[in-house]
Amino acid sequence: MERAERFLRACRSEAVDTTPVWFMRQAGRYMPEYRAIRAKHTLLDIIAQPELAAEVTLQPIDALGVDAAIIFADILPPLVPMGMDLEYAAGEGPVLHNPLRSRADIERLRDIDPHDSQLRSTLDAISIVRNALADKVALIGFAGGPFTLASYAIEGGSSRNYQRTKTLMWSDPDAWFLLMRKLGDLTAAYLVAQIEAGAQCVQLFDSWGGALSPHDYERFVMPTVRHIVAEVRKTNTPIIVFGTATGGMLDILASAGSDVVGVDWRMDLARGWDLIGHDRAVQGNLDPIALFAPLPEVEAQVHRVLRAAGGRPGHIFNLGHGILPETPVDTVRAVVEMVHGWDRTAAAEETQAMLAAQAAHVGA
Amino acid sequence: MERAERFLRACRSEAVDTTPVWFMRQAGRYMPEYRAIRAKHTLLDIIAQPELAAEVTLQPIDALGVDAAIIFADILPPLVPMGMDLEYAAGEGPVLHNPLRSRADIERLRDIDPHDSQLRSTLDAISIVRNALADKVALIGFAGGPFTLASYAIEGGSSRNYQRTKTLMWSDPDAWFLLMRKLGDLTAAYLVAQIEAGAQCVQLFDSWGGALSPHDYERFVMPTVRHIVAEVRKTNTPIIVFGTATGGMLDILASAGSDVVGVDWRMDLARGWDLIGHDRAVQGNLDPIALFAPLPEVEAQVHRVLRAAGGRPGHIFNLGHGILPETPVDTVRAVVEMVHGWDRTAAAEETQAMLAAQAAHVGA
Repeated sequence: MERAERFLRACRSEAVDTTPVWFMRQAGRYMPEYRAIRAKHTLLDIIAQPELAAEVTLQPIDALGVDAAIIFADILPPLVPMGMDLEYAAGEGPVLHNPLRSRADIERLRDIDPHDSQLRSTLDAISIVRNALADKVALIGFAGGPFTLASYAIEGGSSRNYQRTKTLMWSDPDAWFLLMRKLGDLTAAYLVAQIEAGAQCVQLFDSWGGALSPHDYERFVMPTVRHIVAEVRKTNTPIIVFGTATGGMLDILASAGSDVVGVDWRMDLARGWDLIGHDRAVQGNLDPIALFAPLPEVEAQVHRVLRAAGGRPGHIFNLGHGILPETPVDTVRAVVEMVHGWDRTAAAEETQAMLAAQAAHVGA
Repeated sequence: MERAERFLRACRSEAVDTTPVWFMRQAGRYMPEYRAIRAKHTLLDIIAQPELAAEVTLQPIDALGVDAAIIFADILPPLVPMGMDLEYAAGEGPVLHNPLRSRADIERLRDIDPHDSQLRSTLDAISIVRNALADKVALIGFAGGPFTLASYAIEGGSSRNYQRTKTLMWSDPDAWFLLMRKLGDLTAAYLVAQIEAGAQCVQLFDSWGGALSPHDYERFVMPTVRHIVAEVRKTNTPIIVFGTATGGMLDILASAGSDVVGVDWRMDLARGWDLIGHDRAVQGNLDPIALFAPLPEVEAQVHRVLRAAGGRPGHIFNLGHGILPETPVDTVRAVVEMVHGWDRTAAAEETQAMLAAQAAHVGA
């Protein structure tokens, strides 16, 4: 089975020869090849130059043996054509110099067409990468989720408590939902444009959505997530919805109707899958810091994730969040081998036996 | 019913006249009375002077009308007599200048008796406050949980990813468990000493424990949590175990046997209580940032938490984490009134009807 087929079949919960694997931030600073390019170009430069973005996207593919590539980009650039002043300050993370602080600020945000903006460079990079991968390895597009984008735009950067974001949400819900409408429309259009350019799957990173209570996420964010998922699904392309610290709201996230739901490492994958529902695929969920452990410990943790998934169709192996900059490349490569080399038969038989026992119990 | 009795009965899941309420960090910078004292004294100064610590502890009691006081202290001072060099750097949070980086560093940590150390000042403050409260308002003592203390000691301060902490844990489990043994012994002795000095309940703040996967928390931290809980329970004093982002491990936390388990705002309280088990009391779980919302929104959120608890005995109202420095005092005071003034009868009747319907269904 080609790696692309393995990944795409798993997204649709179809049978595969072995569990597919890729890593969030698999193209990045932990790789010497990437650092060599970053020494000469800023992050926004790389994203703005399709050939360079394509090169970085492809760096981990053969080096690691993963089943999918994810286009090299970032979640924040869509805010720029909308009218926001984005800078990646050295050592500080992203800064938005004109944060949204009022309804008027939100009203001023422009509604844009991704094709007629600097997002065009990412669409072009997708076409180059898709062509280079020649359907051997799958290509994933992505965008930031609505709460996460709103939080950067309102706080002016990353945040510990999301105090301004939540306060605006609760004190001026009309302004909040206007922002959600604008971000949701652009995100849906951008993901569909990525699919038209060649992405075979897309992931919505609402990475900080877990900072809200499940009730607030349902009320203030889910309508927008549902809209985005529905627009993508019209293209018959699988979509993954992902967030961290979402153990209390996996069922709510799943209700958006995505093909795949990401699970972070804070919940056992078997329990997470029960909450999500076994009609969906799941992605996860090794602790990203586990890649710093000695190999026998890494292997025990990788096997634990695989056993929790139980050899069922519809598991995509990944970390619970992105790879950290100091991660040893050799360990990442070893994890790919552990996942691909794992004997799923034994686990699948165990799962079958457990399900049969449960069915007998229900019938009794 | 006196406020102290209301709180202590709820800890033991006994019937109360109305839901008791207190707030993590209820003595702190959001109060002008506290800022007036902090203008003249450092944090460590206040903790070192029993009269001053007692005064700060009592500030919110009448101002807010809460049912419990929590002794003014911090989780990190116990590291100082063990041999660590602690400083609260302005604007930076706590810094430990000699972080633990090897087994030898851990071996050098001293085993101490809380009475023969600077922790004595907190024990003295407890006696002063207990006396001042005259059994009208309950007094809570506390200590940091083992993962949280270890993370500060190893990282040298607060951390985003706990990379050094987890790496030490996985790569040198013997050194890790030596550290757990030392922290666990001191913490158990310190909590028992607080009880002897007058604390009527204690809370273990393993605030960052949710950064571990449930499996790792169970394996690397729970033996120590169980030891601490068992030592406290020998005194017949209720203990609350608390952490954040613990939605995937509430059942594991509950297995330590504490009387009360804290739930943060990332999980619906009804679901959390189901995981913990209804033989235990629960504490929580309003989003601390909700205190920045307009009052009608605050009230809706407070009522949602109370309805989720369903008017059952054994709910202590609190935030899902500590009060933030800019929180409006008037809103905090209003929340106390909302909790005390809530009509529990309707919710309790709804819960009874639901349980009766479930019982009928099981019987059918």
